[in-house]
Formats: sequence, structure tokens, C-alpha cells
Amino acid sequence: MSQRLLELIDAPSDLRALTYDDLAQVAQEARDTIISVITERGGHLASNLGVVELTLALHRIFDSPTDNIVWDTTNQTYTHKLVTGRRDEFQNIRLEGGLSGFGEPRESPHDTLCAGHAGTGLSIALGIAEGAAKRRMDSWTIAVVGDGAMTSGSSFEALNNIVHLNPERFIVVLNDNGMSISENIGFLTNWRKRLITHPEFNAMAERMKALSKKVPSGELMYRLVKRFKAGLAGFIVPTMFWTEMGFQYLGPVDGHDFKQLEETLRQARTSTGPVPLVHVVTHKGHGYEPAEDDPVKFHQPSSPLGGASGSPTYSKVFAQTIARLMREDESVVGISAAMLDGTGLAEVRRDFPDRVFDVGIAEQHAVSMAAGMASNGLNPFVSIYSTFLQRAFDQVVHDICIQNLPVTLIADRAGIVGEDGKTHHGAFDVSYLRCLPNAVVAAPMDENELQHLVYTAYKHRGPFAIRIARGAAAGVPLDSNLKALPLGKGYVIREGGDVVILALGKPVSAAVEAAEILADYGISCGVANSVFVKPLDIDLLLEAARSSRRIVTVEENVLAGGFGSAVLEALADAGVAGVSVHRIGMPDSFIEHGAASDQRRRLQLDAQGIAQQALSAFFPEAALPYRSEADLEVAARV
Amino acid sequence: MSQRLLELIDAPSDLRALTYDDLAQVAQEARDTIISVITERGGHLASNLGVVELTLALHRIFDSPTDNIVWDTTNQTYTHKLVTGRRDEFQNIRLEGGLSGFGEPRESPHDTLCAGHAGTGLSIALGIAEGAAKRRMDSWTIAVVGDGAMTSGSSFEALNNIVHLNPERFIVVLNDNGMSISENIGFLTNWRKRLITHPEFNAMAERMKALSKKVPSGELMYRLVKRFKAGLAGFIVPTMFWTEMGFQYLGPVDGHDFKQLEETLRQARTSTGPVPLVHVVTHKGHGYEPAEDDPVKFHQPSSPLGGASGSPTYSKVFAQTIARLMREDESVVGISAAMLDGTGLAEVRRDFPDRVFDVGIAEQHAVSMAAGMASNGLNPFVSIYSTFLQRAFDQVVHDICIQNLPVTLIADRAGIVGEDGKTHHGAFDVSYLRCLPNAVVAAPMDENELQHLVYTAYKHRGPFAIRIARGAAAGVPLDSNLKALPLGKGYVIREGGDVVILALGKPVSAAVEAAEILADYGISCGVANSVFVKPLDIDLLLEAARSSRRIVTVEENVLAGGFGSAVLEALADAGVAGVSVHRIGMPDSFIEHGAASDQRRRLQLDAQGIAQQALSAFFPEAALPYRSEADLEVAARV
Repeated sequence: MSQRLLELIDAPSDLRALTYDDLAQVAQEARDTIISVITERGGHLASNLGVVELTLALHRIFDSPTDNIVWDTTNQTYTHKLVTGRRDEFQNIRLEGGLSGFGEPRESPHDTLCAGHAGTGLSIALGIAEGAAKRRMDSWTIAVVGDGAMTSGSSFEALNNIVHLNPERFIVVLNDNGMSISENIGFLTNWRKRLITHPEFNAMAERMKALSKKVPSGELMYRLVKRFKAGLAGFIVPTMFWTEMGFQYLGPVDGHDFKQLEETLRQARTSTGPVPLVHVVTHKGHGYEPAEDDPVKFHQPSSPLGGASGSPTYSKVFAQTIARLMREDESVVGISAAMLDGTGLAEVRRDFPDRVFDVGIAEQHAVSMAAGMASNGLNPFVSIYSTFLQRAFDQVVHDICIQNLPVTLIADRAGIVGEDGKTHHGAFDVSYLRCLPNAVVAAPMDENELQHLVYTAYKHRGPFAIRIARGAAAGVPLDSNLKALPLGKGYVIREGGDVVILALGKPVSAAVEAAEILADYGISCGVANSVFVKPLDIDLLLEAARSSRRIVTVEENVLAGGFGSAVLEALADAGVAGVSVHRIGMPDSFIEHGAASDQRRRLQLDAQGIAQQALSAFFPEAALPYRSEADLEVAARV
Repeated sequence: MSQRLLELIDAPSDLRALTYDDLAQVAQEARDTIISVITERGGHLASNLGVVELTLALHRIFDSPTDNIVWDTTNQTYTHKLVTGRRDEFQNIRLEGGLSGFGEPRESPHDTLCAGHAGTGLSIALGIAEGAAKRRMDSWTIAVVGDGAMTSGSSFEALNNIVHLNPERFIVVLNDNGMSISENIGFLTNWRKRLITHPEFNAMAERMKALSKKVPSGELMYRLVKRFKAGLAGFIVPTMFWTEMGFQYLGPVDGHDFKQLEETLRQARTSTGPVPLVHVVTHKGHGYEPAEDDPVKFHQPSSPLGGASGSPTYSKVFAQTIARLMREDESVVGISAAMLDGTGLAEVRRDFPDRVFDVGIAEQHAVSMAAGMASNGLNPFVSIYSTFLQRAFDQVVHDICIQNLPVTLIADRAGIVGEDGKTHHGAFDVSYLRCLPNAVVAAPMDENELQHLVYTAYKHRGPFAIRIARGAAAGVPLDSNLKALPLGKGYVIREGGDVVILALGKPVSAAVEAAEILADYGISCGVANSVFVKPLDIDLLLEAARSSRRIVTVEENVLAGGFGSAVLEALADAGVAGVSVHRIGMPDSFIEHGAASDQRRRLQLDAQGIAQQALSAFFPEAALPYRSEADLEVAARV
């Protein structure tokens, strides 16, 4: 279809002259653009399709960037990007150098912050509104929060503070799409379940039906209206909750009806008294049948750029292993925070519906609940993405480590994650976990080691964290029997006397390749897999120090406080001097979006990069066959 | 008065035969014991006085430890300790080797977990209940949560999951005392403000009046009834909120009336359907006039063991400095999370009521809101105790550092804190903050450096963390003009060629003393104040390495990933080999309660300990006048 109308929208102000019919066309064009780019590229599809009309309405009623539209989370800002001057760059979204898949102030003044973790939007918006008030500006601040983000504790803290401060020119838009990432948990869902037919409902369905006939893909839309109706029937009006909390409740509003949306937003703009909370009901995946049918799958279709491989993911192997343990031991339970699919636990839940818990976007609760479970005889495994586990850091310290409870934490997506970029890399978990007393911290080099580490954690009677990488595992065969690995023991993979690479987790295989590259330069390079960061294998380390006096450490974590740092600490504590250590890891900066393989190459975290860094650090004249006794001095500059 | 009845209570079961009159006497005796010990010793007074009757009632209706009573937070378990076999040890509470001021499973099977951070009790209780259910035990789990803890996001996450799972044999007791630590924030308070006279109210007041005449300090109680009445008049029944959320609301109950408490708890035990939430209204400081009049002050009277000093605290100097900045610059605001008094900001708020924010026990929100403020022209200073800042770790990463926003974090009570023990030491902030890109992390050696660091942070256009110690500052005069310190620059305090101590923050002064002790051994010891951990002063470090080749680092943070670790990293990155580094800091274990000075001595963090460690590490034959060139070999064991 023609892109005629969307192509005329260079700024939000261009939307204001449009009729509702025109707007519907813009919405359809935006939807088509998003579908065509994201189904090919990967990205957040369903959530973006749900907020097309809401985005356009917000930009007509409010005056961005004078007014601040704060999205929680900013992965739903694709339409927003399309109408704020980034239409032509949209096809490069999530590619290196292209648009971010999230909000990005550097891209546009229309973007407030880059928020990739759910549950911070209300707080940020309140801060922005306070800034406006203190500076006596009359701009509006609108926080658009999905119902999934609303289940996070930080949202609740913000709601509480919002009713306390009751800021002026502040509006909360609750984007209620009936599900967060895998499913909605808790009281918002309960409301939906209590069947009360809303009086507006039939009219709403009629309007959608009428609208659907005016746009090219009308037949498709007509069919979806039916499904929308079925879903909406279980919808009720939770006025009392918000009113008792101290908000002025407005809604519910059909989030795909421009007129209703705009009338209510205008009402919110002009009302006085408590902060308005506009309850907008949207339909995740709206306008794209496959995404509507399976919005979980289409929450974020995996990128074909990630490189398909026949190997299972680390997440899947973790899930298979815990399922195996669950079959043998009733005390084993799994917990995830709105990431049942991503962590592989969804499949486990099919077999053990009562023993796999999805707590919603509530990482703090997930960890504390696991502590309670472990204190009362269960053996909980909590799988949370490394970047989201940050949300539960205090609970890991306070409820797991201080109490020394046998909880296993799986820090999934640890290290480089690729297209999701800076808010999603698992860059810090080694640093923030290895500083904790009682914690064991480990990382497998492949899926076979992973299954044994899961079993080791199962047998261990204290806190145990296993960090695993995103994506396909190494593709090695799995031992048929699970075994407990010796705690704090690594092993030599390859002998070598000029330099030894000590690696942790996924980079071990790159280190082995790097050693082969170095061999071409005549350099004898040993490789050892540390397996554990804490406790660290001191004997392995001292042997490496003794044999080569040159050590390279490799990890996918920031260098500050990471695995290499632990190696330096151990050497210093052992009183070892005169050994040169070169640390390879993630830099002291946030890594933008792009393909993970490109990122590893650019950061010199792949085999070539590791070899290159080892050469530069210890064998700057390269190509020459250095031998071990020789040039210690090269590295020692003091 | 005689301790006759309380002395007969060796276990909760001993409470069950008592009449209500006897119980009232036990309550009075418990109260007298708590008042007499805590007013002398320091501890959590007001909160404990508020739950005396509730504790006794819980122990009569439920069968601990078969049933699990989970307190959030466990600093209100003094009466619980008195009636669970720890009466005779109560006088040694919070002393080294004595009872913990918090729950402690090692002390008693009646204690579930040691919880010192508010907001985890509901999650832990849910986990315990799930454990009981999976193991097919028929024990009850009762979560007792204060209204302050209820404002934390983690509580909300748990509430949400509780209504979703609807566990059997699970009861939530909301201990509504009308204030958390400094004041209640948000919707619970709003309810209280809406004046609805409760029908039960007059009867409740009458019962208290009658009760007050039966106990020795009756006259005092009678007077407090009046104040209680005044406070309760503003009390309303938020039934709808809890009912809409999915709970079975029971109450409100007068938390000082045994009969009413027990009847309602029995009702909760026998009811079916949604999880019962028993709303108990208590009076913080109940039965002790000074604590009732000023429950904030008596939340935790400061311990006379802490050592009174004429010097202001670091918190106070921070507050004075920010107040000074606020007078000059309207964009400066202060934020605290339920710790306005502890952080010194209460005083600042008197002058700037609209520019000091207390968000309640909501550290996550505090940090994200600050990010929003900074993104919109304000200059926020967020002061949170180091241990509680852990709760906002993800927000520090995601909303402050990724966005690179000019927010200053004051990590108060960093390092050793003394009597509050393992849940309260600020042991990890250097590790969890210095790993973050864009972050500046600093610590002043005295209050004059603190005021300049606050000014430096104010001038800096990015994330800036300042860790400050608990208690009295060094007692040095304050420069009259504030100045911006050079970022990442430390300085030499004392020259010396045999060994150099690089110290951070409060331990700098102990390091100077240690150098003097070492001088007595004929050892020339230099001392440098690093001021910054990140960026680290490389020049200062290299000069120290060059001059002595023996470096001691001192910090009050765990060694893993801490300041000494940063020093090792910098030396390795600079290619410096052949320098021995001995790191002094907090150990890889959780430090129990006791006086801070005793803890420092025992951990060898005082001057004597630092000197001793330097001697052992580098000059094992001590007393001999070592000189610099000599025994590098001593330390180099490889």
C-alpha cells in the first residue's frame, strides 16, 4: 500500500491537522512499516502494534518535546520514532549505527530517557515533572506505563509518591494490554478475570468494526475485532483501587479509538484535583494476526541476525536439566520474573505446573520468595536475565547470602546480548556477585558443563550463581549422567609455556582458538577454564603464573571488579609478584546495540581479538617466536 | 515492679494459660524490660513498644515454631525474643556476643530469617508457605508487616503474587502504626488523613482506659489513651483497596486489645477464601511517653556505646553543605528514603520544605526520580545508607549511569556500622559502584574533604557517588569556601620509602597513625589519601609503586572488587610488575553486631591492626629497621 500519509509526518505537529480517517490511515501505515521491518529484523513487535493509536493521540493532544512523554518501557516507541522525524532511519533500527530499539535522547529531543528495564517510568516522569515545576515551566509530563511494568515494585513506590506529592500537569496513562511479557500476574489480571460487561463495550466493538472497513487490511481487522471482543468481555473497571490510592480515575478507554482516546486525554489535561490516571485498554499485537495469536512469541521475534544454529540455547539446557532434577526430587522448584519463555522455564511448567513460578516483573520478590522457600526445605532455582537480576541485588545480599541459603541464581543473558544494547548487556554480574560472602559464582564454557554446574548447585547447600550466555550453546554432546563438579576447581584445556589464557564461561572456546592463532606466531599458549570465579582456583592460577609468568584473563563482564580482577587479587594475596596479567573483558563504557558477533569483534572478545591483545600486551614484536624467560621486562614498565 | 509473670514465660506455650489480666501484666513487664534495656543500650524502641500485645497474641493463637511468624522488619522482635526463651540474655542485646537486635535463626528456632531491610517479609513468608505446602505440612505462616515496610516496592510485588497464588494457611498482618521511620508517605497515610470516625473507636478507647487502671503505670497509660484517641480519630477503613487487590480484609483491630486481637486472628485462622489481611492499628512507642511524643527520635535511640564526640557526624556536614548549595542554587534538591533524620536532611527540610523529598522506604523510586529530575534541570542529591542503596542498584545502573545524568548519591553509613550488625554494614558499595561506567566514586577522609566533595559533585555533570562513614567525623575545621577538587586526584599525606599506605575515606586517619607506629619499628611508611576510587589516581599510585615497591591499601569495604582491587587493576593495566600489594579491608564474611570500635580492632582496621598487617606482610622480622631495596623477595613467593 502507499505510504502517502506517513511520509508527510516529519514532526508530531504534522499529525494535528489530520482527520480521524487520515489518522487511521497513518496508523495502518505505521503498523505496516513496523510489521515489515521487525518481522525481518527482530524487535518488539506485539507491544508496538498495541500502542499505535495511543502514540498518535498523545502526540496530537500534547506538544512534545515541550511536553514530556515518558514511556515505560521504551521498547514500545516505534510509532513514536516514526512520527518524530526518524521515519527514514527506521529500517535500520537495532542495527549497529542505526536507531536504537529503545528511547534514545541522543537520537531525538522527543525521547526522554533510554529505558529498557520496566518499572522506572513513573519515577522518572515524576522527577521530570518536579523539574518542570521547580523551574516554573508549564510543560506537561505524561507517563505511559504498561500493565506489566505496573506489577514491578518500583512502579508502586512511584505511584505512592505521586499521590503524596500530587504534582501538577502530570498524567499517568495505564496501557492495559492484558499481559506483560509472558502473562500478567496478580491483581490487575484478577480484575480482568472477574467478568463484568462494560457498558461501553459494544459501542467500542462497533467502532472498531466500522474503522476496519475503511482501511485496506480491513478484513483482517474485522476478524481481530472478534477476538478483541472475546478478550475484552472479561474486563472490569477497577475504579475503586485507583481512587482509593488517590488518583483521579478516567476510563477505561478503547486504546484503538482515536476519538475516545483524545477526548479522555483532553479531559485529563483540563481536570483539577488528584493526578489523572487514564486507563487505556489496548490489544497487544493489534493489527497483525500472527502476533495477536501468540503475543508471547511475538513480544520479541528473535533476530535472524543472531545466527541460527542447530545447538540448543544455554537457557534450554538449563531448563532441561532442572526438569530432570524435578522429576527426581520434589523439592526442586523454578522461579522466573516475567521471562518464562526466555529462560526456558515455560516448557518445564507444562510438566510441573505447580513447581514453576512466574512472579511477573518482580525480580525482588522472586529472590526473596526463593529465600523463604529454601529456608523451608525447597530447592529453588531462580532464572533471571543478568541485567534484570540487578533489580534484586539487595535481596541477593540480604535474603540469600546473609542467610546463607541454598538458592541457585541463573544469571541468563550474561555478557554481550547484541541488538537490545546498553540496557540489556549482562555486564556486571561477576562484579556485583563475587563481592558477596557465602556466594559461589560460576560460568560454564559449554552446555555440558552447564548441566553439571546446575547439578553442582543443586547439591550445594548455599547461594550459588551460574551465569550463562545468550543464544546457542557450543553444540557439544551432553553426558548422560549428571555429576557434581568440585567447588572452585578449574582445569587446563591446553598446555603452553609462553602465556596462559585463563578464561571464564563462553569465551573459553574463543580462548582456545586464540591459542591456535598464537601458535602460528610461534607462541606457546596454554588455556585454562576457570569455571568458578568464586571460589577461584588458586592452584590452577599459581601453576599458570609459575609456568609462564604471563597471564591473560578473558571474561564477558566489565573489567572493574570482574574475573580478571579476582585473578589479580588472588595473585596479590598469594604474594606473587613479577607476573604480568593482561585482562580482557567488557570496557568501562556502555555498549550500544548491534549484532553480538560484531560487538565481540569490535571489543576484541573473539578469538582474533584475544590473540591480538595477547600479542600486543606480551609480544609486541609479534611473528617472532618469543620464549618464556625472555622479555618479562617488556611488560614491567616500573 | 516485680518481674513475676514474665519470668515464668520460657516458651510461647506458657502464654496460653494466662488470663487477659495476666497478659496485660506480662505486656507491661515486657515493656518495662525493653524500655530499661534499650534506653540505656540503644536499639529500636518505639517500634518494639508498639507490638507488645500483638506479639503475645500471635504466640497464643499460633504455635511457633511449627507455625512461622515472619516479621518485616525483624527489629521489632524484642518482645518475641523475651517470650521465646531469650529473656535472660535480653540485657546483652546488640552487644558483641549477645543477642542480635534482629531476628536470628541461630539464636532460636522461633526466628525465621534475619531481616534488617524492610519489605522482604511478605516474599519470604510466601516462600515459607510454599515450602510448607509442597512438603504437605499443615503449619501456618503469618507475615507481620509494618505500614512503613508496606510502602516498599518489594512488598507490593509480594502482595501481587500472594493474591495470584492464594496460598493456604497464610495470613498477612498489617501493623499500622501510622508512621514508618520518619513519616509515612503515600496512600496509606492519605487514608488516615481522610477523617472517618470508626464505630469501634469509642469502645476501643474505653477498653484501653479500663486496662490502664489495672497496671502499675496506669496513670501514664491513661494519658496516652487520650493521645491515641486523637491519633486514631483520623483513621479510616481502607477495606476496598485490599478487597479489590484480592485479600480478605479483617479489621481494623485495636493492636493493644488482647481480646480483639485474638478474636480476629482466630477468625483469620478459620476463614476460607482469599488470604486474610488483618489490619492491626498500633501505637508506636506505646506505653513510654518520651517515645510516643517523639517516635522518630526513639525509633532508634543512639547507642551510648558509639562513643559521643564533639564532632558533627558526616551526615550532618553533608546536610549543612547541601543546605548551603540550596541557598545559592534553586536547582539543588535533596532526596531520602525514610531516613530524613538519619541522613541529616530533616534539618534541611525545615528551611527548604519543597526541595527535600522523603519518598518513604522506596530507594528504587528515589534514585529513578532523581534521574528524571536531573534530566530536567535539577541537581539532585540522594542520600541513602550504603546498605539500603543496594535496593536501588539497578536504578543506579539503568537510570543514572547509562543515562550519564548528574545525580549525586551519598552512600551514608558506608563501612562498619556497629550494633546493627550484618544487615546494616555498608560493605559492598565500592564494589558495586566502581564497576559502573560513567560513575565517579569518592570518599572523604574527614568532614572538610566531605564538604569539598559535595561541591565537586555539584559541579560535576555526571553520576557521582560519595561514601561517608557512620558517626562522628574527624573533628577538623571546615574551610569557609567550598572548592571543586580535581577529579580522580589523591595526594600524599606523609612521605616514606619502605612502604606506602594508600587509603580511602575514613581509614586514612588510622593509616597515618599506623605509619607512626611503623616508624617506631624503623620503617619509613608513606601515606596517601586516594580520595577517589574511580577514576583512580594512577600517577599517585605509580609514584607509590616506584618509591617503595610495597603498597598497603586500606578501605572499609569488602576486599573483593573493592578499592585495593582497583589498585591491583591499575597496576596490572600500567604493566607494573614486581610491586607487592597487601590489601586491608572488610573480610569475605558477614560481620555480626557489636561496637564499631571493637569490630575495627578485631578486623585489624584500626591503626594498630593496619600497622600489624603491614608488618606481617612485608616485614615479618619486624622491629628491625628494614630499608627499601632489601627484601622484595620476602613477599614474592613465586
